[in-house]
Amino acid sequence: MNKTIFKPCIIGLGYVGLPILLNLSKRYDAIGYDNNHNRIKKLCKGVDFFNEFKKKELIDKLVKYTNSLEAIKSYNLFIVTVPTPILKNKSPDLKHLKDVCSNLSKIIKKNDIIIFESTVYPGLTNDYCVPLLQKKNSWKEGLDFFVGYSPERVNPGDKNHDLSKINKILAYPHTYLKKDLIKLYSLISKKIIFSKNIKEAEAAKVIENIQRDVNIGLINEIYLVCKKLKLDFNNVIDLASTKWNFLKFHPGLVGGHCLPVDPYYFAHISKKNNFETKITLAGRSINDAMTKTVRNEIIYEIRKNNMRKKKILICGLSYKKDVADLRNSLSLKIYNDLKKKYKKIKGYDPLIDSSHEKKYDLINSKKEFLKFDIYILLTNHTVIEKNIKSLPKNKTIINLLGN
Amino acid sequence: MNKTIFKPCIIGLGYVGLPILLNLSKRYDAIGYDNNHNRIKKLCKGVDFFNEFKKKELIDKLVKYTNSLEAIKSYNLFIVTVPTPILKNKSPDLKHLKDVCSNLSKIIKKNDIIIFESTVYPGLTNDYCVPLLQKKNSWKEGLDFFVGYSPERVNPGDKNHDLSKINKILAYPHTYLKKDLIKLYSLISKKIIFSKNIKEAEAAKVIENIQRDVNIGLINEIYLVCKKLKLDFNNVIDLASTKWNFLKFHPGLVGGHCLPVDPYYFAHISKKNNFETKITLAGRSINDAMTKTVRNEIIYEIRKNNMRKKKILICGLSYKKDVADLRNSLSLKIYNDLKKKYKKIKGYDPLIDSSHEKKYDLINSKKEFLKFDIYILLTNHTVIEKNIKSLPKNKTIINLLGN
Repeated sequence: MNKTIFKPCIIGLGYVGLPILLNLSKRYDAIGYDNNHNRIKKLCKGVDFFNEFKKKELIDKLVKYTNSLEAIKSYNLFIVTVPTPILKNKSPDLKHLKDVCSNLSKIIKKNDIIIFESTVYPGLTNDYCVPLLQKKNSWKEGLDFFVGYSPERVNPGDKNHDLSKINKILAYPHTYLKKDLIKLYSLISKKIIFSKNIKEAEAAKVIENIQRDVNIGLINEIYLVCKKLKLDFNNVIDLASTKWNFLKFHPGLVGGHCLPVDPYYFAHISKKNNFETKITLAGRSINDAMTKTVRNEIIYEIRKNNMRKKKILICGLSYKKDVADLRNSLSLKIYNDLKKKYKKIKGYDPLIDSSHEKKYDLINSKKEFLKFDIYILLTNHTVIEKNIKSLPKNKTIINLLGN
Repeated sequence: MNKTIFKPCIIGLGYVGLPILLNLSKRYDAIGYDNNHNRIKKLCKGVDFFNEFKKKELIDKLVKYTNSLEAIKSYNLFIVTVPTPILKNKSPDLKHLKDVCSNLSKIIKKNDIIIFESTVYPGLTNDYCVPLLQKKNSWKEGLDFFVGYSPERVNPGDKNHDLSKINKILAYPHTYLKKDLIKLYSLISKKIIFSKNIKEAEAAKVIENIQRDVNIGLINEIYLVCKKLKLDFNNVIDLASTKWNFLKFHPGLVGGHCLPVDPYYFAHISKKNNFETKITLAGRSINDAMTKTVRNEIIYEIRKNNMRKKKILICGLSYKKDVADLRNSLSLKIYNDLKKKYKKIKGYDPLIDSSHEKKYDLINSKKEFLKFDIYILLTNHTVIEKNIKSLPKNKTIINLLGN
């Protein structure tokens, strides 16, 4: 393989695109593009907002960042990793994909390849993205330029399954540079699962997350029923786990950018095809309702134990254990709600960027951490677990979800 | 331990009670009771309706059967394994438990022990069974007699997880003969998980089955959406299965006595405690709807391919692969439905008892098996798979669920 065949440009430098860029930059003349100017500025200075990557890696001289479309014109392989969120009415919000496709349609050259990595519903790449890519030119996908799909499987906070350690699907229905593309992806992931069918790969990705969301939803429901029946949830799960095929999921606050979103994409396309899903969204309603449940349980605990006058610290505010990302965090939502009710309450999350401290009224030192009476655990980062364990015995610790 | 402490009587000789009886009979003066006279007569002749046990085992001289309450009066450990089905309105049908408890209340002696194994909702043993047991005498449970709960985990057709190979929960909140009871159960199962809390053990059992039902329901839903979107379901699942945490469930017709029933028990007690479950029953509606879906797909295939005049054989009618039990079988339901529409259709299930052949118009020989044009697979027993493979190539084989 002539490695220089490809000049890869990664579009969207979030937790999906950034590791791909860092990896490919070692081997190719690659560039990272993001339309968020602030993100680009920070990355150039070696600052990853979510603290997943080290400064040294980010400012390596081989790694290039830009927010200029002009600067990416000369590249020939575009890997698109922009977010695919939902609108307020829970239908797919395709604005980022639309912008990228419109922009790319103006700059792609003959024989360029575009690989989408964003999670979508089956059919979206070909039915939505390809027409947009063809709009500004009279080119035909599959003749003049080529589109593929390689679903991202990033699991933030999970070092055991980072990009280099996982199997990655690559769907590419063309022969043009197929082998070279497989080799490029083989350099960044452990094993490439090749498919000719983009729609099947799109479906595979979205159902992975639905399965997880539904299973966490079910365990949240069991947790809530156990509370109602005055059963010790952890004992029940420990007993059930002695069966050979019981699946040990944990109850929790399901936030982030995948599980709370992806089921709506699948339900959307099912509905459009006259099939009303019954289970796909069942996890959603329970998992979203956990915010209210947990908040009310905290209020109940505070009232029951007459803790109103005590100093209360809410620990862990990001959306997931060991992750520094506050976006779509249900823990943060609960904290903000409680803050309105109990002015004196404070928040604590040693992982998140210090720029948030003022906005959310967070403490920022180990010394301050010791000054509270009640510690309520929400997102239980490893470092929080450690700090909680080191507290004197006269402190009250409330771990409602028991994770 | 003095093994003769216990004279065990197993009440209910279905697929749960029978293996316990056969096992305990080797070591104790045990007896099996069933109120079904026909079942007892057959067992005495060495015939297990479901072909799970060999004649030699059943007619062993150590194994005793009875349908007389008089005959079990002298026993002191009652292991109750009667069915807990649902009524037409989907609420718990406790008639078998009620009968057993009423009968036992008349014959139990001081210090007798009663262990329930039937799947129930959390709280049922103490809230429903114990009062019935106390009714005909002034005795108090925990003082005069003792109740425990050991949920059955029998997986019919699964030789890898028969009674002797599994972990078995035993919940028993008393000290009286506790160690002896654990030892008795240790003789029949690989490992005993002891708990003092009956309600927790009841919950553990029922959620195991709910989790399975919901996961099969989700995969059935995904199967149906794939059909709608004209996606190859098996390819989608194969791709998704390359993710480290994807759970490979198979779409199918969920029949039998556990999965279609147990979720209603849990939903029932939740509702009684003012909590409306949202996911627990989500599997039920999809899984039940599969009967209609599969039936309609078969009709569609027959029409599409103009097969009306061909000779059609429906293969596999019991509720589950490699199981001989026709009760609660969705495959049988589909077959009966099709039979009304296509008079010439025939059924085939080499596992089920030959007494059913006439009633359901089944073929009964390998020679007859070869005479059809179209073979439609429903419950795909290992022996059916083998027979189908040996068919000449000009036969049409329809395997809708692709299992």
